Amino acid sequence: MNELLQYFQRELPGINGFLDAEADKLNGLVKGVAKHIIGSGGKRIRPMLTLLFARAMGYEKDDYHAIACSLELLHSATLLHDDYLDDAELRRGRTASHLVYGRTETILAGDALLALANEMAARYGQARLSWLLAKGIMETATGEIEEIEFSKDPSLDRDKYMEIIIGKTARLIECACRCGAALAGATPEQEDAAGEYGLNLGIAFQLVDDALDYASPTSETGKPEGGDLREGKVTLPLILLMEDGDGAGSEALLDALKDCSLTGAQCEALLEQVREGRYSEKTRDEAAAYVEKAKACLDGFAPGEELTVLRQAADYVLTRTK
Amino acid sequence: MNELLQYFQRELPGINGFLDAEADKLNGLVKGVAKHIIGSGGKRIRPMLTLLFARAMGYEKDDYHAIACSLELLHSATLLHDDYLDDAELRRGRTASHLVYGRTETILAGDALLALANEMAARYGQARLSWLLAKGIMETATGEIEEIEFSKDPSLDRDKYMEIIIGKTARLIECACRCGAALAGATPEQEDAAGEYGLNLGIAFQLVDDALDYASPTSETGKPEGGDLREGKVTLPLILLMEDGDGAGSEALLDALKDCSLTGAQCEALLEQVREGRYSEKTRDEAAAYVEKAKACLDGFAPGEELTVLRQAADYVLTRTK
Repeated sequence: MNELLQYFQRELPGINGFLDAEADKLNGLVKGVAKHIIGSGGKRIRPMLTLLFARAMGYEKDDYHAIACSLELLHSATLLHDDYLDDAELRRGRTASHLVYGRTETILAGDALLALANEMAARYGQARLSWLLAKGIMETATGEIEEIEFSKDPSLDRDKYMEIIIGKTARLIECACRCGAALAGATPEQEDAAGEYGLNLGIAFQLVDDALDYASPTSETGKPEGGDLREGKVTLPLILLMEDGDGAGSEALLDALKDCSLTGAQCEALLEQVREGRYSEKTRDEAAAYVEKAKACLDGFAPGEELTVLRQAADYVLTRTK
Repeated sequence: MNELLQYFQRELPGINGFLDAEADKLNGLVKGVAKHIIGSGGKRIRPMLTLLFARAMGYEKDDYHAIACSLELLHSATLLHDDYLDDAELRRGRTASHLVYGRTETILAGDALLALANEMAARYGQARLSWLLAKGIMETATGEIEEIEFSKDPSLDRDKYMEIIIGKTARLIECACRCGAALAGATPEQEDAAGEYGLNLGIAFQLVDDALDYASPTSETGKPEGGDLREGKVTLPLILLMEDGDGAGSEALLDALKDCSLTGAQCEALLEQVREGRYSEKTRDEAAAYVEKAKACLDGFAPGEELTVLRQAADYVLTRTK
């Protein structure tokens, strides 16, 4: 993982500096929120993927920051609206923006970051980049809506779950990869290969996220253990547990999730069953298959530093613990 | 005004039909909100201006709906977030969306309409159209933020007021006009002339809106008379009143607006002073100057039905009573 680490260490300051400079230009009412969410860490995986694919396809210019960072801003905008609507208290271990800055500032900062992301993508005067970002925004908004709809009427349907995680996470990561390829003037086939890598990586990323939620203590992820279950969110570990059961408890569980009437003791019992059945690990195993699919998409790419890093990034998604 | 009326009557069904069909494709969670705001009337002035400029510049194809309607959707998205953040009860005489459908649905519908607007503009594969829409979204978001910032710290500064109304209203109307010109493949000079028309028309439109707020009974505008004042909003009629005074009451008024501590009786007294001093009419007089500026921008355009309608549209802005 040496190359991955080195690449990130080399490129992160430029990406963070660009994000900071763009946030600084925003109106005072929303600037604090923007800097709070941008400064709260995050792995910058989206901008990094844009850069990696652009470079992997031979792009040598240094003007990649605007399109790369637009993906990060779009992601941040989504987090702001999501956290507000979820009444979330924490984001990446820090107090959520709406609790620090207020609802008006947070909603408007989300709008401003979305607008800025879009404007940054349009700076290149390339219709393809604008189209990709427009599609990414549309898919992300739809994914967000479908997730909330699902949370109001949860099911233990694996297909539905996959649809949700693709919409809320994987499409934007696909978009980041496609943008890098498009910036480099890739052929449609090359762009599709980049997109396919991103889609599979994104699915794996979210599967691991959902696995971690059942597995890791608060200190590492910044989120309480079993938080998804406590919030009534159905994710793969729970679906796997129920698939292995006799189905007797499923209806009752869904009703309890829908009404938010799951007691603390019921939660603990379910968490214990997930641990015993190793469903978090089994979810990771499913993620591993998507990581392999992602790596296979790289077969046609020329060898080089970026290709090495893209392979390591896929592996990292699987091994991360926070 | 015959030609204006005929043009609108001929084109409105197509525009409304397109907006409806696009809203129908949205997820069920937000579809109701989208249809509520789209179906609540509105003059469709933005899509109509896009169409008029495209046609005035010789565009003959029938694929103008997506770009024209994108401006209307962007406007609708702004209204949804604005009304929610303002705790508004009414929009165009109907119950505001967030009170009918809830906050989550309303915020997400705003996000979805913004995303859809953007995607619709990108469908043409023309970088200029995407750039114009991206800029329009950015300016509208900024305008919205500046207006809220101004409402938290109001002043009687006419320049600031002009900046606010340009940001919140005129830039998007400018954008609609520019999009029509760009769709028709206009030269930069032609696009600028269209934009200039829109900017001046938009300023006049908002000035008349602010004048109407002090002048018309609820039944015509769907808003309570003097609503802006009651909400603590500083607009031109109030600025004109204060400019004519000795300045003694200005500080106290601003403090009261900031604290929302203006009593009913104080409001009535101010409304009476605005009526007596004819400041609503004086605001309209200022609007008239912008309407003339707008019409002057049309000098270079070829005569024809669209030019006639664009002139009449400018005059209509001034004479409308709701």
